[in-house]
Amino acid sequence: MNALRQLLPRWIKAYPRTQFTGDLLAGLIVTVLVIPQSLAYALLAGLPPQAGLYVSIFPVIAYALLGSSMTQAVGPVAITAIMTFTVLSPLETPGSPHYIALAASLSLLSGALILAFGLLRLGFLSQLLSRPVISGFISGSAVLIVISQFKLLLGVNASGATTWQLIYSLYENVSQARPITMLIGGVALLVLYSSRMWMPKALGRIGLSRQKAVILARLMPLLVVVAATLMVVEFDLDRTQGVAVVGRVQEGLASFTFFIPSLDSLKLLTVPAMILALIGMVQNITMAQALAIKRRERVDANSELVGLGTANIVAAFYGGMPVGGGLSRSAINVAAGAQSPLASIVSAIAMLCIVAAGTHWFSRLPLAVLAASIVIAAIGLIDIKAFRQAWSYDRADALALLGTGLGVLVLGLELGIALGIGLSLATLLLRASTPHIAVIGRIAGTEHFRNVDRHGVETIPGVLFLRIDESLFFGNLNAVESRLGTELEKAADLRDVVLIMSGVNRVDTTAMEVLSDINRDLASRNIRLHLAEVKGPVQDRLIYSPLWKALSGDVHLSANCAFEVLRPLASVPAPGPPD
Amino acid sequence: MNALRQLLPRWIKAYPRTQFTGDLLAGLIVTVLVIPQSLAYALLAGLPPQAGLYVSIFPVIAYALLGSSMTQAVGPVAITAIMTFTVLSPLETPGSPHYIALAASLSLLSGALILAFGLLRLGFLSQLLSRPVISGFISGSAVLIVISQFKLLLGVNASGATTWQLIYSLYENVSQARPITMLIGGVALLVLYSSRMWMPKALGRIGLSRQKAVILARLMPLLVVVAATLMVVEFDLDRTQGVAVVGRVQEGLASFTFFIPSLDSLKLLTVPAMILALIGMVQNITMAQALAIKRRERVDANSELVGLGTANIVAAFYGGMPVGGGLSRSAINVAAGAQSPLASIVSAIAMLCIVAAGTHWFSRLPLAVLAASIVIAAIGLIDIKAFRQAWSYDRADALALLGTGLGVLVLGLELGIALGIGLSLATLLLRASTPHIAVIGRIAGTEHFRNVDRHGVETIPGVLFLRIDESLFFGNLNAVESRLGTELEKAADLRDVVLIMSGVNRVDTTAMEVLSDINRDLASRNIRLHLAEVKGPVQDRLIYSPLWKALSGDVHLSANCAFEVLRPLASVPAPGPPD
Repeated sequence: MNALRQLLPRWIKAYPRTQFTGDLLAGLIVTVLVIPQSLAYALLAGLPPQAGLYVSIFPVIAYALLGSSMTQAVGPVAITAIMTFTVLSPLETPGSPHYIALAASLSLLSGALILAFGLLRLGFLSQLLSRPVISGFISGSAVLIVISQFKLLLGVNASGATTWQLIYSLYENVSQARPITMLIGGVALLVLYSSRMWMPKALGRIGLSRQKAVILARLMPLLVVVAATLMVVEFDLDRTQGVAVVGRVQEGLASFTFFIPSLDSLKLLTVPAMILALIGMVQNITMAQALAIKRRERVDANSELVGLGTANIVAAFYGGMPVGGGLSRSAINVAAGAQSPLASIVSAIAMLCIVAAGTHWFSRLPLAVLAASIVIAAIGLIDIKAFRQAWSYDRADALALLGTGLGVLVLGLELGIALGIGLSLATLLLRASTPHIAVIGRIAGTEHFRNVDRHGVETIPGVLFLRIDESLFFGNLNAVESRLGTELEKAADLRDVVLIMSGVNRVDTTAMEVLSDINRDLASRNIRLHLAEVKGPVQDRLIYSPLWKALSGDVHLSANCAFEVLRPLASVPAPGPPD
Repeated sequence: MNALRQLLPRWIKAYPRTQFTGDLLAGLIVTVLVIPQSLAYALLAGLPPQAGLYVSIFPVIAYALLGSSMTQAVGPVAITAIMTFTVLSPLETPGSPHYIALAASLSLLSGALILAFGLLRLGFLSQLLSRPVISGFISGSAVLIVISQFKLLLGVNASGATTWQLIYSLYENVSQARPITMLIGGVALLVLYSSRMWMPKALGRIGLSRQKAVILARLMPLLVVVAATLMVVEFDLDRTQGVAVVGRVQEGLASFTFFIPSLDSLKLLTVPAMILALIGMVQNITMAQALAIKRRERVDANSELVGLGTANIVAAFYGGMPVGGGLSRSAINVAAGAQSPLASIVSAIAMLCIVAAGTHWFSRLPLAVLAASIVIAAIGLIDIKAFRQAWSYDRADALALLGTGLGVLVLGLELGIALGIGLSLATLLLRASTPHIAVIGRIAGTEHFRNVDRHGVETIPGVLFLRIDESLFFGNLNAVESRLGTELEKAADLRDVVLIMSGVNRVDTTAMEVLSDINRDLASRNIRLHLAEVKGPVQDRLIYSPLWKALSGDVHLSANCAFEVLRPLASVPAPGPPD
């Protein structure tokens, strides 16, 4: 019971009344503004449009009560929508009853996984994904989303299991494009793009505050949707010009549908649910942290997961579509002045009222306009800057990013992210197996040691100071041995080798044995092996190893201690080997 | 052409005549002594016994000419024999013509792989296997070998694709065990075991040199084989008592059989050949290095691989059985006084003569005796000490060893080694993602910094010195952030955080971004972030990153420099945050 009480949100216990008006207003603004994207992402996921409205009700309340972020808003989001579509569309016809059931199962499974991760405090598992891999995944998915919307913007039929098949199908059918649909879609794209790019700035220049400018800009999708719908109704464009519209929307509220997923769907959906959970976890925690930093608060990753997982489980039973922490939802929420999750609760109740009042208003909304708003949102997710920054900082990370993005496009979401994880692990191992090793010397007059190639330093003839900048493990001992061999060939009169272990954080069993071999090998040539700057945890282990007993030289506290001990010997002639 | 000339062995160019008698004698001794194990390992591999003799001829010459080890002897070995059997016996009936053809293809494929690795200088790939994994693999295989020989020692029929099936089959048929066969096998086991364990010591005590004692001990298998064969012939045990014998052995020399493996066998054998190649490479290089260290020589891993690869290709065409660097062969070779690969060439020629003279001598050799010699050799490969040492040094490595060994027994050779590699990589990642982080302070009167928990050290109030003993990458940033959070909570009046980067060998893109986040987060609390002891290669990258520009504190050459700079400020009151 105490554990449950701990999960209760702090914000309810100490809610300041002064915040109430702000949260109320923010909640109402959010509700109105997110209607178009809720419909759009449900369609993107291959589900009936009202699903997007339904999951904007109870899952939002669940997250508000259990999550730890003050201003993050959950709901249908682009990435989880496209993931749902790409996972399920090869299995079933989008929109069919079985497809809808599978989407609900997917939401339940990934929600249960996220909840379990949160309760078991396994939030750190989201570390499996590096930022470049996440960025590549999101950018790749965004391109997929853009491609998937072309058929709606052109008003043609096109389908395909893979990206290439879809593009080819579009190419084959492009001659049947409907001009009025294209016009509506094109105008919507133009208006939305310029409102996203220029409006906040332009409104700022005429004196509006940043917050109001953001809200007005975010209002544009709703205005475009309303205008387009009115035009369709006025000129009967859907019946006379074949402009595709949302069509029959289930009227009123849905009822809760509780179910247990079948064994078959468990088999089909476990891997996709794991990927969905992983991506959802990472995106949610990253965004919650970014939002919290702005408010100088901290988020607890594990209660974030409890909130997100529960929201998805609730979504499975009411609406049947996975939800996530939405970038644009949260931005609207913050801009509208939300101070606590109460804003989300208000928004959920308002959405409940809207849905109850009637959804037939949406039935003649042209799909091309929703497609345009999806495309604009998706373009906003493509992060070229992340690639440029990774490229200038670390080529391997940039390649992992690019590989993940292209992998998502060419191989699909699952193989794409697997490729990304594989690339980042391979980079990690490759780096660790080619350690930086430096011959070092003392900067005259100090106790500091630096690379002899980078700095003018003192050295002792016959003594080699070698600093290994890597933990020693089975994968990089060849490199160490071969570098040592090279240095031994360079200096024929070597008497002492000092390994500076300041960068060695671990020495595994293989490394300990190879060091013992090296020690024996050097001893047979009358060269002593010393260790210096051995870290506490490394020494704790080595002290009981055969290496410690057999070591021909000494263990020195620091490179400087070794330098002082070995220097005087250099002035007297070295003793010959015993006969 | 120059490349080929470089591959020619140095030892031929500068062969000292004085070595000739020694090499000649050693070669002859080796030939006689390895006959029983050559027959035994061929049978272990599921091949006709003479295959073991054939591959002791031309492959040995190929290795002698191309390898780099002076005293290593190649030939049929226990590990490759059991690998051949376990890989091929599920595909075909051992001993059948197709089985024999598959064994030759396996030898060809793994030889070609090893040769390619050597020519492409990819010998470092053998680093994929840590010593505990290799040790676990060999011990597990050795237990498999022992189990596989029980049926011959008992004289019963037993078969099974998996270890458990084999054991169950043995259990079912144990009532049909033949007493005379068991007697012969038991006596052979006893004699061979005591000769291996006690003879060298006992002979040493009565004044024999170590070398002679080893050779006499190694002579025992041959004596046991001869004695057992004579007994079978004398008492007609094979015909009257059902004692299983080698049976018809192909008379005289084989001819070379050149072939190109079929596409089907390529498909079946590629993965097994890769594992065979990997294990062969590792075992060969490890043993060649151990032998070379004793002679104060160096081996070149890549020419070792060229030698071993060519030997296996030749073995594919003459004898048709994979070969490797043999532990007991090499031991005999060294003990017999071999100084150069000429000893191996002599041994190959002698074997050629023996085979040409007639192999019918071996046809009435009882299998139980060969099984006994295999069991004794296999028991010698089970390395309990390696497990004990790993356990006392590093539990995770010990578990990888145990996992590999049990994996080999329970899941088979391929999955066993895959499990081992998986376990060692997982250990590596797990260790790297739980870095050692220490709050450090200065040892009074020195410039040395140590863990505040381990040593009595000076600290500065309001300044936190945190040393991270691990490269920073996407997998361990949560740990760093959470430790930093804990330390921030402990010290409410913190003004400066100094990250000591002496153990940080790399900072990947994710880590650079997270450090930037931490910097921003700390700045918002009026805490400055400093870096100290940043390594050259790390600094080279960071200098162009957003972190470098945004860093709220300074970059110090050493922890001591940071200490000196930050100390004076502590005596004056800290300035309040700007209003």
